[in-house]
Amino acid sequence: MQSKTRIQLERLLRALVKHDRKAIDDIYEQVEAIDLAEEIEDLEDDQLEYLCSHIDDEKLAEILEESDEELQLEIIDYLDNKRVLSLFNYIPKDNIVDILGELPIGKRKALINLMKADDKRVIEQLLGYDEETAGGLMTTEYIALGAHLSIIDALIKIKEIAPKTEVIDTIFVLNDKRQLIGTADLRDILSSDQNEQLTDIMNDYVISVHPETDQEEVALLVSKYDLTTIPVVNKNNALLGIITVDDIIDVIQEEHTEDMLQMHGVHKEESLDSTLLESIKMRLPWLIVNLTTAFFSSFVIKAFEATIEQIVALSATMTIVSATSGNAGNQTLSILIRSIALGEVRLRDSLPALKKEVCVGILNGFIVGCLSGIIVSLMYGNIYLGVIICMAMTFNFMISGLFGFIIPVALKALKMDPALASSIFLTATTDILGFLTFLSLANLFLPLLT
Amino acid sequence: MQSKTRIQLERLLRALVKHDRKAIDDIYEQVEAIDLAEEIEDLEDDQLEYLCSHIDDEKLAEILEESDEELQLEIIDYLDNKRVLSLFNYIPKDNIVDILGELPIGKRKALINLMKADDKRVIEQLLGYDEETAGGLMTTEYIALGAHLSIIDALIKIKEIAPKTEVIDTIFVLNDKRQLIGTADLRDILSSDQNEQLTDIMNDYVISVHPETDQEEVALLVSKYDLTTIPVVNKNNALLGIITVDDIIDVIQEEHTEDMLQMHGVHKEESLDSTLLESIKMRLPWLIVNLTTAFFSSFVIKAFEATIEQIVALSATMTIVSATSGNAGNQTLSILIRSIALGEVRLRDSLPALKKEVCVGILNGFIVGCLSGIIVSLMYGNIYLGVIICMAMTFNFMISGLFGFIIPVALKALKMDPALASSIFLTATTDILGFLTFLSLANLFLPLLT
Repeated sequence: MQSKTRIQLERLLRALVKHDRKAIDDIYEQVEAIDLAEEIEDLEDDQLEYLCSHIDDEKLAEILEESDEELQLEIIDYLDNKRVLSLFNYIPKDNIVDILGELPIGKRKALINLMKADDKRVIEQLLGYDEETAGGLMTTEYIALGAHLSIIDALIKIKEIAPKTEVIDTIFVLNDKRQLIGTADLRDILSSDQNEQLTDIMNDYVISVHPETDQEEVALLVSKYDLTTIPVVNKNNALLGIITVDDIIDVIQEEHTEDMLQMHGVHKEESLDSTLLESIKMRLPWLIVNLTTAFFSSFVIKAFEATIEQIVALSATMTIVSATSGNAGNQTLSILIRSIALGEVRLRDSLPALKKEVCVGILNGFIVGCLSGIIVSLMYGNIYLGVIICMAMTFNFMISGLFGFIIPVALKALKMDPALASSIFLTATTDILGFLTFLSLANLFLPLLT
Repeated sequence: MQSKTRIQLERLLRALVKHDRKAIDDIYEQVEAIDLAEEIEDLEDDQLEYLCSHIDDEKLAEILEESDEELQLEIIDYLDNKRVLSLFNYIPKDNIVDILGELPIGKRKALINLMKADDKRVIEQLLGYDEETAGGLMTTEYIALGAHLSIIDALIKIKEIAPKTEVIDTIFVLNDKRQLIGTADLRDILSSDQNEQLTDIMNDYVISVHPETDQEEVALLVSKYDLTTIPVVNKNNALLGIITVDDIIDVIQEEHTEDMLQMHGVHKEESLDSTLLESIKMRLPWLIVNLTTAFFSSFVIKAFEATIEQIVALSATMTIVSATSGNAGNQTLSILIRSIALGEVRLRDSLPALKKEVCVGILNGFIVGCLSGIIVSLMYGNIYLGVIICMAMTFNFMISGLFGFIIPVALKALKMDPALASSIFLTATTDILGFLTFLSLANLFLPLLT
């Protein structure tokens, strides 16, 4: 696929040089803009400049829309402000705002000042919303019609507006105060009696969000109710914009990536493409935190040096307790983080689930502990060592269930990401308490062990 | 929200008893079927039975579609086969297949045998596909029209078919052999000259998948190209069905959940709702694997008991090496698993990324190692112990970068889930090699440490 696009891109460049309009259109029809954008990243600077200055606005706008941030900045660098504005004619408002958001402030202001008053107002309003809220995701390209329009008039309007909008299968129905009072399915409009009014066929139970609603919550609603678009309204229920499902998919991917990465203390913006230096910088802080917690466990062990000196076998067996209970805790932790992300956990009724996790911990701890106990007893020829390891594991697995549950729930309650370094905090707890329990028990029953 | 739905459900039940048709319709319009389904789960058996036998087919079909597996089985238990079939008239084929898939084989066969020949053929064909492939996701409710249809005739057909189909904004265009040769946007159809043919306005570059394509790959295409629907074709490019974006969102959620859970050895089907016994059963196997690897590290330590006996400080310091390098490895691991899931990693050109991860490991290991070295030197008043810990950490962080990269890539190459127990395998490696490196170095420089 990649190399096929490359060939098309080379053909496109040659066609541009020859001003072969037909060939350009042909190629453009056969390639998706996003594939083209991915390939354009690898072009030489002069090739890119040539492409930018010779391809027409609509096509360049599509490429710009699909490019990653870096390429967007590069392309815009080759264009004067007037050309950028004419590209914007082909790009939905929400994406224009995303592009503007990445530009240096001076450039951004210059572009906004050149816009028509209407566009300027909309863009400035959209720029005002936090990127991670419904307002930051919404676009203003949609079809909204008055409730008392007849079906036939509605159809005429729809035909008129359709080419300029992102979504056509849902028509938003407004009252005289521009409040959203319903949605009409295009399929119903097509199959209804032409003299009926929109208000007769509309669905008046509409799921909507406010501009300040967190993007994660928006994604949950869209996925729960199988929506392809969700309207954004203000406190008076006036329609401000809509969010389309493709942006929601991006949000879901983004939030999942964050969960996966943050759990082990990776910065949510790191990716495989980050440079060596960026990766080191982004990972070090949590590694230092982890180092600190590792020293805490080390202090615990150090406190029992006298005991270990007498029975050096403790040194080899204590790590079994910490390693397995750390893993058990991470099992609970991952289930919790996913459940919170999927909106399945509500703080107030989570007590039974907490109890279950603690019970799972105790029972699994006892089973794994018995197994370990038997092996250790046989290995060291001391049954008491086995009993102690079993007790320590049962207790520590319980702790792992408890903290695997509490850490993400607490982070969530503190309005932080439930995944944030949660695995680091958890293994710190299970390590420290694991060593402490096991070595304390060993110390207590020392006479039986020697 | 929850309690509001509950009130509506109670009202619904009372309206059913009174046979108050208008009230029933009213309530039903104000509540989403999925909210109702969630609330119905908590009904008493006799209430559920009453509801099932008194509500009309269309409404019950919606509830059935939105229920979870357990409730679906319960509802179907209250209905005779004929009623189930009449509910199926209101449910898209892909969802019928999902429901049938959960029924006992006898019941499933009985229902299929009662179907009309046409339906039977489609359903049996759909049931033949693996659940996790494009075939398992697709539905046969879409609008496909001949390429040489005029716009005006196309519109008439669309109006006719629209009420029975899931997607109307994309019309699939077929040639005489029923091969998919393009798609037409409803917006273009609405705004085109009525005498043109579909073939004049269609987009003939169509992204499609085969029925055996893995669902993860389908999701990647939909998310990359911002599709709201993707057609499924056979090898001759004949249209078999389409997949809608709401099902793709479910796939994305499912795959992410799997990644998150499997990394730490949690069965992909476990959730917060699993019973105590299920949870224990599903988590124990990987805990046992983890116990085995923990014993391997324990054996490594045991082999150095003589060394530890002489310098008991090793016992407290060795865990710093293993804990921090385990965390560093998990950082690499989570980035890799996410990148693989997002389709960003291709095996053949992953060498630079592998090199980067190893370098990040070495450099972060050296930084964290120096810090640890200084603290340990001061704590134990022995600079050599500090040097050894720094060396061991640098080496072991390198290993963690290497294995954090290799484990998911290898699992993927073996056609397994890249996340499957990867964290368990990784920490086993970093623990074993961490203890081995550190204790070997200590043994080597023993005279300097005592």
